[in-house]
Amino acid sequence: MTATIVTIGDEILIGQITDTNSGYIAKAFDHIGIEVHEMLSISDDGKHILETFSRLQDNTDFVIITGGLGPTKDDITKKTLAEYFEDELVSDPKVLAHVENLFEQFTGKRQPLLQTNIDQALVPSKAEVLFNQFGTAPAMWLQKGKTVFVSMPGVPFEMKGIVDNVLIPKIVREFKRPYIIHKTIMTYGMGESMLADKISDWEDNLPDSIKLAYLPSPGRVRLRLSARGTDKNILEADIASQVETLQQLLGSTIVGFEESESLEVVLGKQMTQRRLTLAVAESCTGGKIAQTLTSVPGSSKYFKGGIVCYSKEVKTQILSVSELTIAEYSVVSEQVAIELAQNVRKLLKTDYGIGVTGNAGPTTDDTDKSVGIVYIAIASAQNTIAMEFNFGQPREKVIDRAVVKSLEMLQKEILKNVE
Amino acid sequence: MTATIVTIGDEILIGQITDTNSGYIAKAFDHIGIEVHEMLSISDDGKHILETFSRLQDNTDFVIITGGLGPTKDDITKKTLAEYFEDELVSDPKVLAHVENLFEQFTGKRQPLLQTNIDQALVPSKAEVLFNQFGTAPAMWLQKGKTVFVSMPGVPFEMKGIVDNVLIPKIVREFKRPYIIHKTIMTYGMGESMLADKISDWEDNLPDSIKLAYLPSPGRVRLRLSARGTDKNILEADIASQVETLQQLLGSTIVGFEESESLEVVLGKQMTQRRLTLAVAESCTGGKIAQTLTSVPGSSKYFKGGIVCYSKEVKTQILSVSELTIAEYSVVSEQVAIELAQNVRKLLKTDYGIGVTGNAGPTTDDTDKSVGIVYIAIASAQNTIAMEFNFGQPREKVIDRAVVKSLEMLQKEILKNVE
Repeated sequence: MTATIVTIGDEILIGQITDTNSGYIAKAFDHIGIEVHEMLSISDDGKHILETFSRLQDNTDFVIITGGLGPTKDDITKKTLAEYFEDELVSDPKVLAHVENLFEQFTGKRQPLLQTNIDQALVPSKAEVLFNQFGTAPAMWLQKGKTVFVSMPGVPFEMKGIVDNVLIPKIVREFKRPYIIHKTIMTYGMGESMLADKISDWEDNLPDSIKLAYLPSPGRVRLRLSARGTDKNILEADIASQVETLQQLLGSTIVGFEESESLEVVLGKQMTQRRLTLAVAESCTGGKIAQTLTSVPGSSKYFKGGIVCYSKEVKTQILSVSELTIAEYSVVSEQVAIELAQNVRKLLKTDYGIGVTGNAGPTTDDTDKSVGIVYIAIASAQNTIAMEFNFGQPREKVIDRAVVKSLEMLQKEILKNVE
Repeated sequence: MTATIVTIGDEILIGQITDTNSGYIAKAFDHIGIEVHEMLSISDDGKHILETFSRLQDNTDFVIITGGLGPTKDDITKKTLAEYFEDELVSDPKVLAHVENLFEQFTGKRQPLLQTNIDQALVPSKAEVLFNQFGTAPAMWLQKGKTVFVSMPGVPFEMKGIVDNVLIPKIVREFKRPYIIHKTIMTYGMGESMLADKISDWEDNLPDSIKLAYLPSPGRVRLRLSARGTDKNILEADIASQVETLQQLLGSTIVGFEESESLEVVLGKQMTQRRLTLAVAESCTGGKIAQTLTSVPGSSKYFKGGIVCYSKEVKTQILSVSELTIAEYSVVSEQVAIELAQNVRKLLKTDYGIGVTGNAGPTTDDTDKSVGIVYIAIASAQNTIAMEFNFGQPREKVIDRAVVKSLEMLQKEILKNVE
């Protein structure tokens, strides 16, 4: 089965916001064996929307649309869908009741709705409504020929609620789909072209059912194997056997495998299972490690807290980093990272402590280290490890890489200390 | 002038990475008056790429392509471009020399290149090479009919280097373009539908040259006016006159204008100008306030640091929140928010302190407050203010709204105390 994902809204086309909805839907579809053929963003323009619907008609099994369902005049998706389906808009009593409830919740009292709010309950008569628990705009499911059109609001959390709780369960229930399995192999220390050269013969002899992709990023290359078919066990066995061959070819260049779950989720599970606790002291990452950890529901079980020690005073007065250490080695140094990790661990009485100090740029301010240099330390009751990195620039890349590297280093320590 | 932006690569279609390249290019094009008509992502599939090129041919003035230019077998953009232009690939001596230099820089010695690296210097004979200072893959400029096709690597910092230093200057030099002007008006405290109702007549009478868009986000609605034309002065006057009318219609609902600057950037400027400093104590937002503040370069001038007090012990032991207060009012309470704000301000010796405690969900854990309830306090030497909010759910929305609200409350206090 195949799908096209369409985003409607000028704000994406002028670069005012980044479309993250399509990626979310693509991932969810990939998990249930639906291949996304194309993603596109178009403007709030009726003619362009209609042309696009016609082009996609019978081209893929699903056309998933987000955006343009708000109550205002620039939101024309619903009207245009009705036009495309030669249908009329009718008021859905369930949706209307839901809109009324949401407004009552929001304002604290029952009151007459504005016409624009009442109109939120209008849907094409041929549409099946998909319940939007988090917002007033109903999602809609409409079929024409062999293609199902699904229209959802563009507000990310509303869209996610519908995808997770309504759309995916419905598709899983009603359609037989093949399996798609990905395995991402992480390599380190060999350039993309050298790697490609080394596995060239193997790559040429891959069966048609397995596809290889190279995903290079600074310092490492990930290899993604994708298999598609009807028997999950066979696919898994095929992938496992190819990975084994790859391991023989590449040896220690392979440093691990990427889970489909994010690092912070996997780490959270590992800490919860082992009943471990964590505290962080972060300077240049400015709270992003704490924020990444706490983005996971249930993180309060293992994450006790953090200190964002942006100024020198917070480092010395709250986290007791020695003035002498700073004078001798500077604020951006391995020694300061170590003291941060050890002291925050003691202060918050946790099993592990992370300490990060560095220079995210764009200017070096008053430090002696160049932009991009970051020191990360992990402290436990047993030992403290620390490393220097050069994450280059710009600022956002330095911060993001420091966050990922901190969590990777912590994970390695946890797995090591347990063995 | 119009453009289509095409991203080539399976990793986007399976949701493994989010395409941020297209938004970057769209913004750059918007600034020089080129309207992006459509953005799309397609797979590394020759047939699909050729079909897409044919469909876009003569449809827009530019087709901007990123991705698929690496040295490995899954990278087929260059080969496919040559096929589409009925052209052959020839080695470009300048590009080859650049590839050799990059490898020498990277490995520290001059050495024979692999065939895959030599092939990086191949370009269609009809192509003009756009120099890629940060990588080995050359960008290419090819014209057919009335459409210019530009192909660039997908690695974001390589693409950005080419767009900023080569592509945009070349277009500005060689093409006459109209102006596009946007003005974003920030409103607060009125729902999207109520707002739309209030300005309905005005909206209906907008001239054709001006387009209105509603950009709702938790707690506020932004109105974006866009004008397109050949005389920049006339456009600016038109927009200014419409904004004046809007101000009469909406009064104090309008809280400001977005000069493409975010709240944290504006707040940073206000604090720097007034030489004010800030510390934050955040529970349910888990570090996101600190992270948002420190995403701004130069934030160390006013942001001294923060405490992420996820556990009760961090609140009582580090931030000296009274055990009695917690026993009497619970951890999620206005009283705790107030103590957090006041105590973090004293502890870090700053002018302002923000204290946030709440329940982001999905479960209520051991608190007596329902999911979505958040208390925010702002403390200064003069006074402390605190408010209760119900941000609903899900978790990420609660966190995001708490962050925005905290910064807005702080900004209000700063402006008030100065008056």
